[in-house]
Amino acid sequence: MRLALLVIALSLAVVAPASAQDASKTKPRSAKEIIDAAPASAWRTLDPANTLYMELDSGRVIIELAPGFAPEHVANIKAMAKGGFWDGLSIYRSQDNFVVQFGDPDADEKTIAKPFPDGTKQQLPAEFTRSTNGVAFDLLPDVDGWAPNVGFIDGFPTAGDPKAGKAWLTHCYGMLGAGRSNEPDSSIGAELYVVIGQAPRALDRQLSSVGRVIKGMEFLSTIPRGPEPMGMYAKPEQRTTIKAIHLASEVPESERTPLQLLRTDSQAFIDATEARRNRVDDFYKIPSGHIDLCNVPLPVRAPPAK
Amino acid sequence: MRLALLVIALSLAVVAPASAQDASKTKPRSAKEIIDAAPASAWRTLDPANTLYMELDSGRVIIELAPGFAPEHVANIKAMAKGGFWDGLSIYRSQDNFVVQFGDPDADEKTIAKPFPDGTKQQLPAEFTRSTNGVAFDLLPDVDGWAPNVGFIDGFPTAGDPKAGKAWLTHCYGMLGAGRSNEPDSSIGAELYVVIGQAPRALDRQLSSVGRVIKGMEFLSTIPRGPEPMGMYAKPEQRTTIKAIHLASEVPESERTPLQLLRTDSQAFIDATEARRNRVDDFYKIPSGHIDLCNVPLPVRAPPAK
Repeated sequence: MRLALLVIALSLAVVAPASAQDASKTKPRSAKEIIDAAPASAWRTLDPANTLYMELDSGRVIIELAPGFAPEHVANIKAMAKGGFWDGLSIYRSQDNFVVQFGDPDADEKTIAKPFPDGTKQQLPAEFTRSTNGVAFDLLPDVDGWAPNVGFIDGFPTAGDPKAGKAWLTHCYGMLGAGRSNEPDSSIGAELYVVIGQAPRALDRQLSSVGRVIKGMEFLSTIPRGPEPMGMYAKPEQRTTIKAIHLASEVPESERTPLQLLRTDSQAFIDATEARRNRVDDFYKIPSGHIDLCNVPLPVRAPPAK
Repeated sequence: MRLALLVIALSLAVVAPASAQDASKTKPRSAKEIIDAAPASAWRTLDPANTLYMELDSGRVIIELAPGFAPEHVANIKAMAKGGFWDGLSIYRSQDNFVVQFGDPDADEKTIAKPFPDGTKQQLPAEFTRSTNGVAFDLLPDVDGWAPNVGFIDGFPTAGDPKAGKAWLTHCYGMLGAGRSNEPDSSIGAELYVVIGQAPRALDRQLSSVGRVIKGMEFLSTIPRGPEPMGMYAKPEQRTTIKAIHLASEVPESERTPLQLLRTDSQAFIDATEARRNRVDDFYKIPSGHIDLCNVPLPVRAPPAK
C-alpha cells in the first residue's frame, strides 16, 4: 500500500505543470506545505515521563527517550535524573564531526567520583537490538548500505534485519547513546553521547542507543571542540557545565516545553518524505529519487493554540 | 585488482586469532596503524596555488580548491581572493545540521554592496558535473543510494554515473559549494557555503561545488546558529567577521601551513578504508561490511621533519 502511494507521488513530483493555468492544480506540494496541512491526528504529544531536559547556560536541550529499544538503560537514566546525578557534572568531550559526551568526567572504568542515586543499577545488559516481533516498522523504500532495511519504530530512525527479526536505533545526527568500555554490557547510562556530525553508522548495534535530541541540538553542536583525536578537553575549565538533567514529568508543568512530533506512520509524513525524495521546484532541478534515513527530518512543533 | 585485495582484507578482518601466540601475526592492522606506516609516496603535498586560507578570530580554516570540477568558479574565486574581496566580509548564515554560508551579506540577487576585484567574471556557467573521460576515479565497492557509483577523483569525494560518463562532487561534511539563486548559472563564487552536518546529498548536481575544508572545520562547525529555518542572523553584530581569505600562494611562505593528504589511490588509503569498513577490535564487535562515502576520512598531516 505504501509503495503504491510512493510511486504515485513520484510520478506527480517529476511532472511539470502542463500550462500556466494548470500550475496551481498540478504543482506538487512541498514538504513544508504537506506538514503545515497535516491534521491534528498526524501529531503525537511528547510524553513528559519519557522526556529529559538538559539545562545548559546556553539553553534547554530536549531529549526523547526510547524505552522500546533500551528499557533497562532508560529506566536507569530516569533513576539517575530523578536523583539529580548529572546536575553539576559536565560535557567533557566534543569531537568535531562525531559526538559530544557527558557525565562524570572523573569517573573511570573502575571508580566513580559522584555516587549514584538510589535505584541506579550498577550492571545492565547490552541493549543493542530489539525484536521486531509485533512491532510497527514504518519502512522507507530506499536502499541503505548499512542494513537490510531502514525506517522508523516508535518515531525513531531504525535499521532492521528481517531475517534475524531484529531492529536497532541508527546513529543519526542528534541520537543519544550510552558510552561503554570494551565489554558490551559495560554501559549503565551514566555516560551519554550525542551525535553531532555525519552519522557514524559503523557504531550501530555496537552500543545501546537510548533516545534522540528533538530540540536544542544547536546548544550541543556548537560546543567548542576538544583536542584531536578524541575531543576530551585538556583543562577542566573548558568543559561545559550541565546545570541539570531532569525528567520533564518531574519539572513543574509551568516550566515544561510542550512539543508535538509528526507521526512517522502518518500520511503527511509519508508524503513529505516523498516530496523531499523527489524535490523539484524553482531551486531544485533534479529529483534525487532517494533519501537517506538520516536525512529524513522528524518534524517537531509547539502544540497549536486551542 | 582492488576488489580482490578488498576480499582478502575482509577475510583477515573478521577472522579471530587462532591462538594467543599467533595474535601478533594474524591480528589485522587498524586504519591508524596502516596510515602511520604509509610510505612517503602515499602522500601528496597540498598545492599553495589551489589552497585558500580563511582567517577567523578563532583560527585558520584551510580549503583545497577543486579546479578539476569547477575550473571557472575556482578561477573566479582565486581572482576574488587575490583582490581581497572577502576581507572584512562575514559568515552571515549558520543553520544547524546543514551549512554555514559567507560572502557579502548586503548583496542580493540584483545588487552588490562590495565591488568585485579586477578579473572577476560576473557570469559563469553552471559547473555541476564533469566528464569522467580519461579521469582516474578511485571507486569504492560500496552501494550508494544517491548515485550509481562513488569514490574519489583528485582526492575529493565524488559520485558518478558511468552511463552518462559524468561525475560530481558530493555534499559531504566540509565540502565547499557556490551559493546560487534559482538559475543554475547564477553563481560566481562570491557567496560560498560549507556543509556542517549530515551530508545533504540531495544538493549534489544542483550547485557548483568548488572544494573542501581540510583543516579548521571546528572553527566553522561551532559558529552559533542563526534562527530557524535558514540560520540567517537577525542582527549584523551576530555575524562572524572574516579577517581575510587569501590564496596560500599569496601568503609569505613563513606564514603558510604546510600539509599533506593521503592519496586516495594509495594502497594505504585502500587498506585503511577496508579496515574501517570491517572494523573489529577490542571495542567494535560487529564488522559493518560497508562504509558510506561521506564517512571515509581523508587523512591530513603536517609534512614529516626531514
